[in-house]
Parts: sequence; structure tokens; C-alpha cells
Amino acid sequence: MATSAQQFGSDNYAGICPEALAAMTRANDGSCVSYGDDEWTALAADAFRTLFESDCEVFFVFNGTAANSLALAALCQSFHSVICASAAHVETDECGAPEFFSNGSKLLVAPPGSSKLTPDMIRTLATGRADIHFPKPRVVTITQPTETGQVYSLDEIEAIAAVCRELGLKLHMDGARFAHACATLGCSPAEMTWKAGVDVLCFGGTKNGMAVGEAVIFFDRALAADFDYRCKQAGQLASKMRFLSAPWIGLLESGAWLSNARHGNACATRLAGAIAGISGVELLFPVQANAVFIHAPEPLLDDLRRRGWRFYTFIGGGARFMFAWDADPERVEELAADIADAARLMSTAAA
Amino acid sequence: MATSAQQFGSDNYAGICPEALAAMTRANDGSCVSYGDDEWTALAADAFRTLFESDCEVFFVFNGTAANSLALAALCQSFHSVICASAAHVETDECGAPEFFSNGSKLLVAPPGSSKLTPDMIRTLATGRADIHFPKPRVVTITQPTETGQVYSLDEIEAIAAVCRELGLKLHMDGARFAHACATLGCSPAEMTWKAGVDVLCFGGTKNGMAVGEAVIFFDRALAADFDYRCKQAGQLASKMRFLSAPWIGLLESGAWLSNARHGNACATRLAGAIAGISGVELLFPVQANAVFIHAPEPLLDDLRRRGWRFYTFIGGGARFMFAWDADPERVEELAADIADAARLMSTAAA
Amino acid sequence: MATSAQQFGSDNYAGICPEALAAMTRANDGSCVSYGDDEWTALAADAFRTLFESDCEVFFVFNGTAANSLALAALCQSFHSVICASAAHVETDECGAPEFFSNGSKLLVAPPGSSKLTPDMIRTLATGRADIHFPKPRVVTITQPTETGQVYSLDEIEAIAAVCRELGLKLHMDGARFAHACATLGCSPAEMTWKAGVDVLCFGGTKNGMAVGEAVIFFDRALAADFDYRCKQAGQLASKMRFLSAPWIGLLESGAWLSNARHGNACATRLAGAIAGISGVELLFPVQANAVFIHAPEPLLDDLRRRGWRFYTFIGGGARFMFAWDADPERVEELAADIADAARLMSTAAA
Amino acid sequence: MATSAQQFGSDNYAGICPEALAAMTRANDGSCVSYGDDEWTALAADAFRTLFESDCEVFFVFNGTAANSLALAALCQSFHSVICASAAHVETDECGAPEFFSNGSKLLVAPPGSSKLTPDMIRTLATGRADIHFPKPRVVTITQPTETGQVYSLDEIEAIAAVCRELGLKLHMDGARFAHACATLGCSPAEMTWKAGVDVLCFGGTKNGMAVGEAVIFFDRALAADFDYRCKQAGQLASKMRFLSAPWIGLLESGAWLSNARHGNACATRLAGAIAGISGVELLFPVQANAVFIHAPEPLLDDLRRRGWRFYTFIGGGARFMFAWDADPERVEELAADIADAARLMSTAAA
Repeated sequence: MATSAQQFGSDNYAGICPEALAAMTRANDGSCVSYGDDEWTALAADAFRTLFESDCEVFFVFNGTAANSLALAALCQSFHSVICASAAHVETDECGAPEFFSNGSKLLVAPPGSSKLTPDMIRTLATGRADIHFPKPRVVTITQPTETGQVYSLDEIEAIAAVCRELGLKLHMDGARFAHACATLGCSPAEMTWKAGVDVLCFGGTKNGMAVGEAVIFFDRALAADFDYRCKQAGQLASKMRFLSAPWIGLLESGAWLSNARHGNACATRLAGAIAGISGVELLFPVQANAVFIHAPEPLLDDLRRRGWRFYTFIGGGARFMFAWDADPERVEELAADIADAARLMSTAAA
Repeated sequence: MATSAQQFGSDNYAGICPEALAAMTRANDGSCVSYGDDEWTALAADAFRTLFESDCEVFFVFNGTAANSLALAALCQSFHSVICASAAHVETDECGAPEFFSNGSKLLVAPPGSSKLTPDMIRTLATGRADIHFPKPRVVTITQPTETGQVYSLDEIEAIAAVCRELGLKLHMDGARFAHACATLGCSPAEMTWKAGVDVLCFGGTKNGMAVGEAVIFFDRALAADFDYRCKQAGQLASKMRFLSAPWIGLLESGAWLSNARHGNACATRLAGAIAGISGVELLFPVQANAVFIHAPEPLLDDLRRRGWRFYTFIGGGARFMFAWDADPERVEELAADIADAARLMSTAAA
Repeated sequence: MATSAQQFGSDNYAGICPEALAAMTRANDGSCVSYGDDEWTALAADAFRTLFESDCEVFFVFNGTAANSLALAALCQSFHSVICASAAHVETDECGAPEFFSNGSKLLVAPPGSSKLTPDMIRTLATGRADIHFPKPRVVTITQPTETGQVYSLDEIEAIAAVCRELGLKLHMDGARFAHACATLGCSPAEMTWKAGVDVLCFGGTKNGMAVGEAVIFFDRALAADFDYRCKQAGQLASKMRFLSAPWIGLLESGAWLSNARHGNACATRLAGAIAGISGVELLFPVQANAVFIHAPEPLLDDLRRRGWRFYTFIGGGARFMFAWDADPERVEELAADIADAARLMSTAAA
Repeated sequence: MATSAQQFGSDNYAGICPEALAAMTRANDGSCVSYGDDEWTALAADAFRTLFESDCEVFFVFNGTAANSLALAALCQSFHSVICASAAHVETDECGAPEFFSNGSKLLVAPPGSSKLTPDMIRTLATGRADIHFPKPRVVTITQPTETGQVYSLDEIEAIAAVCRELGLKLHMDGARFAHACATLGCSPAEMTWKAGVDVLCFGGTKNGMAVGEAVIFFDRALAADFDYRCKQAGQLASKMRFLSAPWIGLLESGAWLSNARHGNACATRLAGAIAGISGVELLFPVQANAVFIHAPEPLLDDLRRRGWRFYTFIGGGARFMFAWDADPERVEELAADIADAARLMSTAAA
């Protein structure tokens, strides 16, 4: 199959990074017990414990939808509710998976346009109703970085955790691009999670360079009770588990988890810098991770499409570009140049 | 990590076969759209259509538990029931996954000791109750080959399909080791499925040499309506789908799907032959695929364990050995020799 | 227990109306087969068929939450979605029951402040997303009259039904106070349902004068397939069914279903008329059924509470009064007088 | 509707007993707050606390299927399992409700023919598997009296509770006919429940003389956390709750709960005594409550049917007769006489 030019429509377009692939290949040597009783899986879990400076419980599942939904289901009963931002992936892009895995937990969604939750939003949603005719708030979930590429500061996370504790809520972090937030903040994984008050983290492997796989990490071990059964029943226990766990060893031990993220972030910053000041093109959100959302006139976006670019679009004229571990800086420059050129042509045509 | 000697406790102990790995590596070249809209996935689905001589609907999911449960959930409402053998994996080893995915469909289990279903068992289970106080039978599931290594003949499948049609039941085949049954019967995949009356097949990739992944194949396309949504909601849609689909191309185009299975079957036959006639050791089931179940005194099994062998055991003194694509014939001989030696020592001690 | 003065906080505060009680008592005479195989239940279902001039399928369940949720679950798979108004009871007051019964169907809620759905809202919600990462729209539910006491005209229902047909959606009507809407419009039950394009109706018995019980009515009989199993599994099959069905005979044959509703509506109209023009008190919604929602300053509401009135309140200063079959017109006048007096005192105090 | 002659096919054929009806009528006087915040409901809960000499948590739901399923769902996660007898109503007659309410908890059923569980059966089922591929045992449920009319002695319950405690299992009692067991044992409700180690009881109201309604009683209050939300979400919160709760006051305060049960038991004993020694008719089970199961040749049962009797039958020639609070002793004698006569005719014909 002919390789086509690199696209930045999603950071899922990237393949397996060398460190993950090497670990996968290394793990492929010989016979190995199944269902996670193997040494690779034990080593990978230990690597996470080292990374997080915590005796946390670690589980490996297939994808982010399952990771988030299983973690939330472990924290909720069916009549509980989960507080999230309006842009939260659990609300917008998981096809009702949280409701399915929990058998009915409702998402209490902050007002439209909220990509980050704030303590005030949480308080309003959590205290708006206190009768049995409405699901009882039980968990707050935040996405770090958010779906639109912003990063919660440590202070922001701590403030959210404080209101959670006050209101008896657990705090879940959807870290589909967790590494990118670490790269942005320059803090340790521990600082961004349990030290700030996070109870459960879903750490994304796929967008970090793996073929498949996410880690669910419980800092409060009591919350992980029987979580292995939950994974099994929900079709999330890999028989050849080593292929889900070993790549983590490759990523974590080599430091690729962080360098991959830094590279994606740098490419986003590069694009944002290169298109700054272009007339008619505006950033929709501050660029703090590996995503660039631009607002541009529809004809300009059409021109980009004609030039062969693929990207997600949004009502009102937005386009998203995301940069993975494999983003080619020259290709980023090509994209920037095409945006500039398309904008120039448009303004010429308008004149 | 030091490679330890090969074990035959499970065919999940094997790694990725060369053909699947090569396809995975080839698919890793460059950027590729996600969530199954890629060319690898289209090609893999087409390869199945060619293999099955059918314009079937094909979906790729992560593991066998999910494949079976999603397929059954697509056929059932929560108040329906699924007829299965007592040894069926859906009953014995999926931790309630069929009930979970379907939100409550009950398994109607044939009497203990039934590794194969028969038309009579199906009729009895399907017609025993016809009131709304008991779940309404809706699907029959058979495992081909069975969990204990027997193969339904084409005649047997056709007879089951006939009773299904008569009683208004759908027929699902759990083909975790589908290829092994094809190898045994020497028939085409089409003959063993839709031509014999099977509505939906779960075709196992993991036990056939892949790292991860199963295919769900609907021969009756109407039954596949919205199955893509079902997979997504249930956490079974891979973002980097090419790594679940491309290996199938490697397996199917090279013929490895069948040669891998033949090799596993041959190793089982070899072990069965080598231990035939050993005093105190008996086959629990006819060897028709890649599994050998033996009955032996507990001290003999203990001796095998001391010699380093790993195997699953069963109440009453059974041991299971399973052979994957990578089974080393010399190692099979070592196992046979150890069984013979242990039996000899035991009979000497007894004398 | 001392009877306290009548309150208008809810139309659930009323007891059993004479016609329903008489039927219940009559049905209590002697031995009777159970689980709905009795003559009372057959007669009650026939009474509905006569009322609706339709060979509809009729089921009797315990309450409105279950009626709505079971009906929606019959129309949806877990990955489907249900379009509703922001004030819809299924969204605001059923504690996630629709999600629970359907195992995860998501509610797509019209913008805040929508007590009635419009074809445009439906089109926007139904066509906003068409990818498998978001639940697939499958049903529209409207409440007739709405939770805030407005009535959809026949034209409005027909227009909604037309957009449903165009978009492949089913139309469900939550008729917790169905009779009140009939009374308002002066149309036949048939005109307001299947003749206008409604597929399934939940007809409220409790608010119509019964002790307990609602009817689920499928005008499209195909949609009712196996609904009896669904009710049983969900804990909604009464063993002594006659006590859920016979009261309907009392209500329908006597015409009390309609006269009860007319009485409630008339009381609401009377209150609305009596308080019209009172300074500082405004109707929040047009009064078209048996509810009156007023906006008034918090001190005025406090004064009413001190005078012994119970009512539901809403953020921003709203109070709800609802009138059942037993509403005492003199007591309605007392309420009106108290509102007027409280308002007068307030304006005096302010002056 | 013409009243037909009394039948003993089920104790659900009986109507509302005078004490329950009087309480219901009394509660119908005037306006009353809804959803269980009323005084009748508070009084009924207190009446249970008095009866059980315990500060237990009490909830009122619509039927037995829901009561059992909700109680079990409160004790289980979806990947847990529930140990029950083969004759348990939850297994045989609730259409998968326990699986539905719990989102997949599996029932681990004792061997066929087990109408009572024993500590050995529980131990075997609870310890047979201890891997994550099979649901984790979490609850034991016993029916008191059993579905076939036997009563667990206090010693038997205590022995079961002891093994539950040892194995970390909760103990649930399905008391659809709880009062009948109290009548048989002559013990207090407290002795038969929490004093013997029962954690949760479902106390049947319908079979005890009510129109509709069961009570779920948590002796361990911690297990009742948020159970009110669970009921609401599952469609089991009555809006006019007084009609579910007040009848209990009538039953409990008058002692009718016990005298009703004694009457049913006495009628069963009377029938059993009257048919003892009839050739060809044998009791299938000891008569210890209000049920009589007989084994008789099919022609004899046919003869009874021709004489107008209705009864449930079982494979192999069994017939069930059950006696409610309203059983007419003369009618019981008629039944006994008809059985004797039919048997006489049969033996004459055979001779």
C-alpha cells in the first residue's frame, strides 16, 4: 500500500513509535503465560509505580473509551452521576459508553463552551439537586490536557480536588494525552495526580506511541477492589497481555513517553507560531499541548482540503490539527505555508 | 528477560506468528486514518469476504469475550436467552460478560458434561418453558471446535441449524479456534458456516497467531445493523485499527491461518499418539483439534509439575495441554516422554 | 391520622377517585387468576381499544418512570439516543431511569428553557452528529401536556411526527397527564395520538385518579413484540394484576378519566384567573392544563409558606401549583386570596 | 363479572384482605404528600421496626421480582454472583430480573432438585472457582419458606449464615411468604432474620393479603446506602406511596399478617391430611407452609381439570395447590374429595 503524505487530522494517525515496537518485538520472544500473569506485565506495572512514586494499582486495557468507562463504573453505581466539562470526550465522543458500562450513570455536563471545569461549575452541578428524582453526584472527571488542548495547572487541579473532597466526590482524570500535559507543566506525574488529589487516572498509551492500550491507575487502592473482574467481564482482559504491557516498559524506561509528547507539543507550538498574524485565521484556544484549533472562513478551509489536507471541522468554521510523536516538522511547515497561502489568496480575491 | 522453556498450558502462551507480525510492521509505515476508515481495514474485510465466498459484514474487536458477547447482544434483548453447552466458554470463562453486554440475557445451559450441543438438547432447552416468567430462547451458540477439542461435523452443524430455524432461533458460532476446525474437517470456511446455517461467527485471531484481535462476521447482513455503534459504545473500537486488521491480511493471504492451525492440531495428535497405551493415563476426549485432555492420577500430575510443566487442571484429575502455531515438536516429545516416565515411576512405586 | 388541609404541591397528593376505588373494590370480589390472565385485565385493555378506536397493544405497569423507560427501551438499543425537551420528566425527574432500563441510551436534550420540542429542535439534535462516536438518534419523546402545563396542538404533534418519519425516528408520548390534554384540546384520544403520528403512548393513571398504575399503549403493534417479557424482567408485572387494570375500567367506562382532568384544568384556570393582575405575581407559563407556575418575589413565597401552603419551587423564584381530580374549589379560592393578600402586604411594606 | 368458584392454583389468586383494604381506604382520606414523605409511610416503617425489634431500614416497592432484584443488586456488582437453590424463584421465575437489575450478576445454582440450600452446597459453589474468569460469589439467597413449601429451621439458617460469614458472603432472604414461615416455626420475625444472621429480607405483602407491594428490609443499615435512589431509578418508587405503605399498618397492627399466614398453612395441612393414604397420590414435599405439591398419574390430574380445578403442573406429573388468607375450608374439602374420588375411579378402571 502506497504511503500517503502525513496528515495531522488526529494523533491517532501515527503508528507505533520505535521504543514501543522494540519492546513489543522483544516480548514476542517465546512462550509466556497469559492474562497478565507474566513478567512483562509485572514489570510494566512496577514501571508505573516508579514513575508515579506510588504503590498504585495498575491495570492495562485496550482503549481509552473502556479505560474511562471502567474507571467511572468502578466509582459509581447506576444511580450516580459524573460531572464533566461540555467538551469532555466521555460526553461527546464515547457513544454513551460511560452510561453503558455503569448501567445508567448520568453525565452532568457543564454549560456549553466549557472545556475546563472549575470549582464553581462543579459546585453548581453537584448541589443543584439533592433529591432522589435525580442522579446523585459521585465523581468529577477532568481531561488533562483538555480535548481542546489546554492544560490544567497544578493549582487548578488542587482547587478542583478540594471541592471534590468537600462535597464527597471522587476525582478522575482522563489522561488520553497525559504525557503531553506533563511535558507542558514540567512537573512530575505524581505532582499532577495523587499529590494534587486525583483518585484515578487513565493514562493514554495509544496517543503516546503504542499500537493499542491504556493504563488505569488507582492511587487509592481501595477503589480498585475487584477491578480485575470488572475488566474481564467487560471484555477488556487481553489474553496475550504482554503485548499490551511490554510496550509501556519501552516507553517508560526509555523516556519516550515524555519525549514523544514534547515533540507533539513542539509541533503544535510551531504551527501556532507560524500562522500567528495571518489575516482571517485565528486560534480558537490557547495552544498548550499538541493540538491547534483554528477559526477560518469556510472557503479557506475548502482550499486546504483541495490541497490535500485532512482535518476535523466544527460548526462555525473551526479546524483541528493534532501532532503525534511522528509529526514531521517539514510537513508542519508545509501546512503553515498552505494556510498562509490560502489566506493570502482569499484576501486577494476579496480585494 | 530470560526465555523459559515452552509450555503447553494454553495456546495463548504463544506470541505473534511471523506472517501477522510482518503485516503489522508493514502497516506501521507512515500515517493512516483511524477508527477503521483505513485501507488496511478495508482490505482485511475483503480478505474475509473472499475467504468466506460471501458478502458478509466484518468487524474487528479486541478479544474473544467481547466478540462473543457483542454478537450475542446484537441477537438478543435483555429478556432473551442463549442456549449453550455446559462447557461453553461463554458460560464457564467469561465472568458474566454475555449477561453484562446484553444487560441480562440468561444462558440456558445443557446438562453437565455436554461439550457439544445436540438438536435434542436444544429442543429441550428451547421448549421447556414458554411463559413470560422465564427468558425467551433466542440464540444457540456452539463452539467450533469445542472447549474440549472436539469438532462438530458439517452434518451436526446442519442438524443444529435446522432445529434453530424450526424454533425461530439464531445460530452463533464461537470460533475462537475456528481455523483448527477447518483444518480438521478439511472443508471450506463457507461450508462450515453460512452454508451450514450459521448466522454469525466469531473468528479467533489471537489463538491463530495474532497479538490481539478477533473478527465478528455476520453472514446475515441485517443482523449487523448498527453493530459499529455497539462496538464503539462497548469500548471495542480500536483507534489505530490498522494494527487489529492488517495482521489478518497477513494470516489470510499467506494461508498461515490454516497452516498455523494444522500445526497445532498435528502437535496434539502427536502427543495423543505418543501417550496412547500408557498405563494410568487416559484421554478424556477424542483429540480432534489442538487440545489434549488427559486423565491421570494426581501424583502423576504432581510429578509433571515437578518436572516443570504447566497445565490447567480439572476436578477429578484432568490436565489440559494445548498447542499453538509455535509448538516445538521436540518439546511435545519431551512432554510425552515425561508423561511416560512419570507413569512408569508410579506403576513401579505401586508394585 | 388527622387529615390536614388540602395542598396543591402536586397532583400526586390526591387519593383514589370514587370511580377507580369502586372498580378496585368490585374487582376484589373473590378469586381471580394472576399476572394479567384475568377478565378484568382483558376488559381494561378492550376499554382502551375502544377509547382509542384502535386495535392497539395495551400493557399495565406500576408507575410513570417505568412506563416511559420501558417504552423507550423497547424502541432503542443501548447505543441509540432519545430526543427530548429540557423540561422533560425523563431528563429531569427519573433519576437516570431511561438510561438504566435501556442500558445506556443517551438523552439528547433541547436547549435550556425548552418545555416543548419543535420540529427544528428535533432536526438540529437528530442531525448534529452522524458518526459512530455519538449515540444514534432513534426516538423523540414529547410530554403532553408538558411538565410546565402547556399543550401541543394537533398541528404541532403532526409536524413533529412528520419530521420523525422523515428522519427515521419513532415518536413516544409521555402522557402522565394525557387526559388533561384531551380535555384542553377537546379532541379524541385517537386524534391526539396515532392519527397524529404517535407510535407509543404512556397514559397516566395515577394523576388521573388511580392509586397506582399506568398504561403503555403501542399503536404500532410490531413495536410491542415481547414487551410482556420486558415488563416481567424489569419488575413491572403485577401478580394481582386486576388491581392495576380494573380501576381503568372504572375510569374509562364512567368517563371519569375525562371529567377528572377537566376538573383539574378548571381549577388551574380558576387560580390563574383569580391572581391575574396581582402586582408582583406573574404566570411563568400559559395555563393550558392543570398546572399554574407563578413567578413571585421570595418574601411573598415565604409568606405563603408561613400561611401553610406547600409547593415546589424553582431557581429564580418560581412556584408550582397543581390540581387533581379532588381539588376543592373553595381551597383554590383560599390560595388565590392568600396570594393576593401576601402580594398586597409586600407592596405595602415596600411603599 | 360473575364470581367463579375459588381456585388454589396460586396464592396470588386471592384479593385484598379486610385489614389491608380498610387501611388503604383509611389512607385514601384527603390530600397527602407523595413519594414516601407521608405519615403513613413513616408509620409503616416504624411498624416493621417494632415487629423486627430492630432499627432496620425499610423500603416499599411494587412486587417481589423487583424487591429481590433490587436487594441483590445493592449487594452485588455486575461481576459478582449470587448463590441460590435450583428451585429459587430468582432463578426459575423472574425472567432474568436479577441479571437485569444488577447488569449481569450470575446466579450460581445448586444441583437440580435442591429446594433448600445447605452449608455444603454453598461452600462448594462459593469455592469452586477463584479466578477472574468466573463471577466472584458475593451473596447467598434463601427462600423462606421455599418455593416448594419447606421451612428452614432457625438452626439451618444460622448454619448458612455461619458459612456466609466465613466466606465473606452476604445473606439475603426471599420472604415472599415470610409470614407463613413465622407461623410454622412459631418464632419471632427477629429470630428468623437478623438474630440468625440474615442481612436483607424481602417481606412479601402481596401473598400476605395486600393488593400490591413488598417491603425490603436491611438489618445492616450500611447496606441500604442510597437504596432510595436505586428504587427510584428502577421504576419502583410509588408516587402515591401511602397506598403501598398503609396496608402494611393494617396487616401488622391487627396481627393479620400472621393470622392470614396461619390460615393458609392450616388449609394446606388440612388438604395434606385429607389425601394422605389415597392410593396413587403422593406428597412431593413435606407440607410446612401453605403449599401442597402432589404427584399423581396424568389421567387423575386430567380428571381434576375436568372437574374444574386449576393448578400448576410440573414435568413428571406434579400438581401444586396453594392456600391464601381467603381459602375457604369447605372448598379445600371439595378439592380433597375430588382427588379421592378421581383416584378411586382410576383404580377401579385399572382393576
